Formats: sequence, C-alpha cells, structure tokens
Amino acid sequence: MTQQHQGNHRKVTLRDIAGTTGFSINTVSHALKGKPDISLATRQIIRQTAKDLGYIADTVAGSLRSGVSSTIAVILGDMSNPHFGLWVREIETAAFQKGYSILIINTNEDASVERAGIKTAIGKRVDGIILCPTQDGLDNLNLLKSTGIPFVLIGRRWEDPTINYVVPDEVQGGCLATRYLFDQGCHNILMLNGPSHISSARERQDGFCSAHREQGIACDQRYIRHVGIKSAQCRSVLERVLDEKLPFDGVLAFSDLLALEAITVLQDSRRYTHRIPVVGFDDILAGLILPVSLTSVTSAEGSIAVHAVDILISLMKKSDEKQISRDIGPIQKVLDVKLAEHFHNW
Amino acid sequence: MTQQHQGNHRKVTLRDIAGTTGFSINTVSHALKGKPDISLATRQIIRQTAKDLGYIADTVAGSLRSGVSSTIAVILGDMSNPHFGLWVREIETAAFQKGYSILIINTNEDASVERAGIKTAIGKRVDGIILCPTQDGLDNLNLLKSTGIPFVLIGRRWEDPTINYVVPDEVQGGCLATRYLFDQGCHNILMLNGPSHISSARERQDGFCSAHREQGIACDQRYIRHVGIKSAQCRSVLERVLDEKLPFDGVLAFSDLLALEAITVLQDSRRYTHRIPVVGFDDILAGLILPVSLTSVTSAEGSIAVHAVDILISLMKKSDEKQISRDIGPIQKVLDVKLAEHFHNW
Repeated sequence: MTQQHQGNHRKVTLRDIAGTTGFSINTVSHALKGKPDISLATRQIIRQTAKDLGYIADTVAGSLRSGVSSTIAVILGDMSNPHFGLWVREIETAAFQKGYSILIINTNEDASVERAGIKTAIGKRVDGIILCPTQDGLDNLNLLKSTGIPFVLIGRRWEDPTINYVVPDEVQGGCLATRYLFDQGCHNILMLNGPSHISSARERQDGFCSAHREQGIACDQRYIRHVGIKSAQCRSVLERVLDEKLPFDGVLAFSDLLALEAITVLQDSRRYTHRIPVVGFDDILAGLILPVSLTSVTSAEGSIAVHAVDILISLMKKSDEKQISRDIGPIQKVLDVKLAEHFHNW
Repeated sequence: MTQQHQGNHRKVTLRDIAGTTGFSINTVSHALKGKPDISLATRQIIRQTAKDLGYIADTVAGSLRSGVSSTIAVILGDMSNPHFGLWVREIETAAFQKGYSILIINTNEDASVERAGIKTAIGKRVDGIILCPTQDGLDNLNLLKSTGIPFVLIGRRWEDPTINYVVPDEVQGGCLATRYLFDQGCHNILMLNGPSHISSARERQDGFCSAHREQGIACDQRYIRHVGIKSAQCRSVLERVLDEKLPFDGVLAFSDLLALEAITVLQDSRRYTHRIPVVGFDDILAGLILPVSLTSVTSAEGSIAVHAVDILISLMKKSDEKQISRDIGPIQKVLDVKLAEHFHNW
C-alpha cells in the first residue's frame, strides 16, 4: 500500500494493462472501448485485468477526442437557499442517471460573477448549461448565445423567441396565492416582491394585481414593496412598513425564504401579536421539515429542475446531430402551478 | 447575429485571430499565453482582437498539456440540507477566488453513489477532492487513497494517520451542548443521534456521556436513539419514544435539520404542549432566518468549509511540487466549537 499513498502515486495506464495481459496497447484500448475487432474472450480478459489493476478511464482525454465532456454547468443564485439547494440535488440526480456530472457555479446574484462563471463553463467545454440568470442586463445572455453551447434558463426568462426556458406560470401563481389570501379573509395584502428586473417578480405582481381586479379592488402600489433577492434583506423593508403604520392583514412573499423572514420579523415585532396568513413561492417545506405553518406556490407538473435537465438533454442530442436552431425551434415550457399548505402548531 | 444563434455556431479559434490580425497561429498562441518572445505591441493587438472576436481559451486542452484542470470535486451527502448548501456556497466562493471551479457530487449518503462519484471526479482529472464521506465501509477511502489525488475529508474522519481532514471538535461539542441543557434545568436529555458508523455521531455521544459523568449522572442508553442521516426520518423514532412514555425534558439532536424536525414533531404531538430546550449542530440558522428558537453547536474558528479549501489548496500545491506524502505528513485540523443561540417568539 505504500506506493498508493497520496502524492506518491502512479496512475494505472493502458501500458500497464498491456504489460500484464501481454496484448498490445492498441488491443487494450480497443477492448476497453468495446470495439468489435477484438474477440469477446480477449475483451473479457482485458476488462477484468483493468478492473483488478484499478484502471479508471480518463474522460478528459476522451472528451478532447469526442468533443463531449459529459458535464453540465449549473449556474444558480445562492446555493445556501434551500430552494436552489433542492434544485441542485434534483438536477444532479437526474443528470447523473443520464451519465452527466454537474459543475456548480454560484452567482451570488451578481452579474459579473455570472459572466465569469459562464466563461469558466465554456472553457471547460461543458456540453450544456442550466442557468437561473441574474437578469442584470442582456450581456451575459448574449455571451451565452454566442457560444453555441445548448442552454436552458430555469425559473426566470426573457421574452425572446430564440431561447429555451422552463418556468412556472408565475402570473397564475401570483393570482392563486392572492385569491387564497382573500379567501382567508384578508383585505389588505402586503406584497413583499423581488426586484422588478427579475421576470418572476414582474409576473407574480401581474397575478397579484389581476386577483385584485377580480375582487373589484384597486391594486394600491403602497402595498407592493421590493426586497433584494438575497437573504436577510427583508427586516428593514418590513420594519419600514410597520413604522409607516400601513395596515395589512396578509402577506404575499416572493419566496418561501422571504416568507419565513417576514414571519420571523412579524413575530419579533411587538405590534403583531396575532398571526396573519403568509404565502410564499418555491415550497421549500416540501424538502425541509420546519415547525412553521406556510402556504406556498409550486409546480403542479413535477420538479422544474427535472424538466430543465430533460430539455437540456434533448437540446444537446439535437446539437450532436448537428441540427441547427432554426430547424428545431426553442423549447419554452410554462408549468402549471398549485398551492401547497403546511400546517403546524406555531 | 444570425451566425451566433444556438446550434448554429462556430467557436472563435486561434486561426480566426491569425486571419484577422495577419499574424501566424503560432504567434497568436504565444501572444495569448503572454510569452516574452512576442513584442508587447503585438501581444496587445492580438489580445484586443481575441477579445473583440469573443475568443475564450479552452481550458480542457490546456489541462491536458499542463495536467492541471483547475477543478475541485466536492462530494457531499445532501445538497438540499441547508447545512451542506451553505458549505457548497462557501467552498465555491473560496475556490473561485483562487481560480478553481467546483464539480458537485451528491452522494445521497449512499456508498455506491459515492464510489461512482469518486470515479467520475478522477476521470475528469480534478486537481483535488473535498469529501464528506458516507463512512459506509473503507472501500471508497481506499479507492481515493489509491488515486494519488490530493483530498481532504470535511466533517467526518477516520483515525488514520495518513489522511487529511478538518472536523469540529465533536466531543467538545457534545459536551458543551449537554452542559447547556443541564444549565437550562433539564434532568432527562434525549439524544437523537446520527448512525454510529459516522464519526461525528460517535464523538458527539462521547461528549454527551462525558457531560453526564461531570454531573455524576449515569448515561442511560435508553436516552440515546439513532436516526437515519437523511431528512424526514425523525418522526417515527421520536413517536416511539413518546409511545414508550420515556420522560424527557430536553433534546440534543445530531443536526439542526433533525432538531427542527424534532421541534415540529413535539409541537404536533398533543403530549408536549410545553416547550422544551432543543440543541442541534451546524448552526444553519446563521444563514437561514427562521421563526424558530434553537441553540446550535458551530465552529469557533471560522467556516470549516473555508478551512477545507485552504487545506486542499496547500496539498495541491505540494503535490504540484512533487513532494511526496511521507515528507509533508497529513493535515488534520480539529476546530474549537461554541454554542450559537437564536431566540424568536415561537
């Protein structure tokens, strides 16, 4: 075992297998690739020897020859948000089953980090990219388009007929959530929305206003507040609303993360001793058991992350077959949504 | 722009830059690598042209030449657990700053997935591996050792003088947490521990028993229960304890995830209308604002994830310099821990 300690290692090569079996390096290489010019018996001997010696095929050299790296880059905003964490787990599981590894890049919702991440992914010859874009300008989208690498946007989109995306029906989500709050007896719903450069924030707000129109109620702009996309930015916004003494009896939050922060701030506040209904998005409580009651908008058509992997794999397949985009058209999926309710004695 | 649409793309090559500038491909290649045989003026023209044309250096071909892929594999149990999600964010941020990308592999705490993941990482010629091992047998550790790729274990370890790891001081953590519960007036503390094949579970239990001895109390084995490492396995174990009518007035949970599940089950239970102190590990509430009161054991010496990156980078540097392991010795860090308290009105 001394020879196998860290830093003191020599990797098992085709030459070693050739030396042990007595076959040529070329025969060993063909046998390991399963080429039919090598007899079954020889292939079996060589494969068993490779296994015994601990040979591991070098996929980097293979990828240079084939042009396929079997890697997907996943570029997301914040891996410590359980919503993105769950996506990563779902994407990784689905991709691994199809033979792909995933390269993770955390943008921290910063366009310059996103740009560097896209360049890293390209430099590493990934076969495809799943991106939840920061949407801070169009430069990074244009960079991505210019590479020719298949990509699919997840959760956020542009109105661009040439790009692939999968998003929940955010207008429907905003509308369903607001109707639910009206049904709970709310009259003044505070919307803690994301920044308006993000498509999902704009579309959820459209749904929020549309549900108000259904009720014959004007959508008062004082009740729509924008909160930064990263965590821990809710308290100051919500405390300002409390200071303004703007009366509200329900909250629609841009995400479950934000909803949980809002509940925390309201509970800490001496002014809100009663509990008011709060609805969020993403249904993180589906994967995280918390002693908190929360209703959330989520896909009614299975995991959006799994949809993204399926779309990307079909795009990569078409790209392999050298079909060009004007023939195949983009794949743009808008998933139906539903409400998920979690009740606990808090 | 039509030429730049997805699937209809031709990547910008050294030949394109040569064609545009009139220099030879060899001159372009040397200029982009900053070699001194090319004049500064020529280098500037070539670099500007490369930038204008959107040239992106191919790191895969570069990695074959240099043997360095600038990629670190991060192999963890469950990315949807905010504890691991936070690690990923911290590792990615620290690694990116040092010029490394990270390849994520989610073992789902399954040794066979872990093995496949290690092989994938090796095949992709990663420069180093950060692993939170499933500890289900020694086969995967031995595989990892045999590759010679620098690696560091995070959060779990074996008593093996040849491997590198960074772990919190788990015995100290179990002891501090148990003392805290005694200080809160608890007399019968239920330990909801992880599976005993995991080093952190065994060591935390040692600390739990040691704090009992300090109090002159025998450590009653009926009060130590083992729960599966993945989420949503707490309810059945805790309900059995409730059915057995084993009286307890405090809970020490193996993780914050488990602690939050336990609080949820206790609140849902009609038998526990009063709140009892609960302590977990990992301090996930440092990165996740929740309307829940929880005390947690965490590193007192900064992020363990950042320590892991620092250790790995120093190992990779030594590996580059062809120093062999018997000269450098392993790096084994045990970080001091502290308690973090989060109080909310739940």
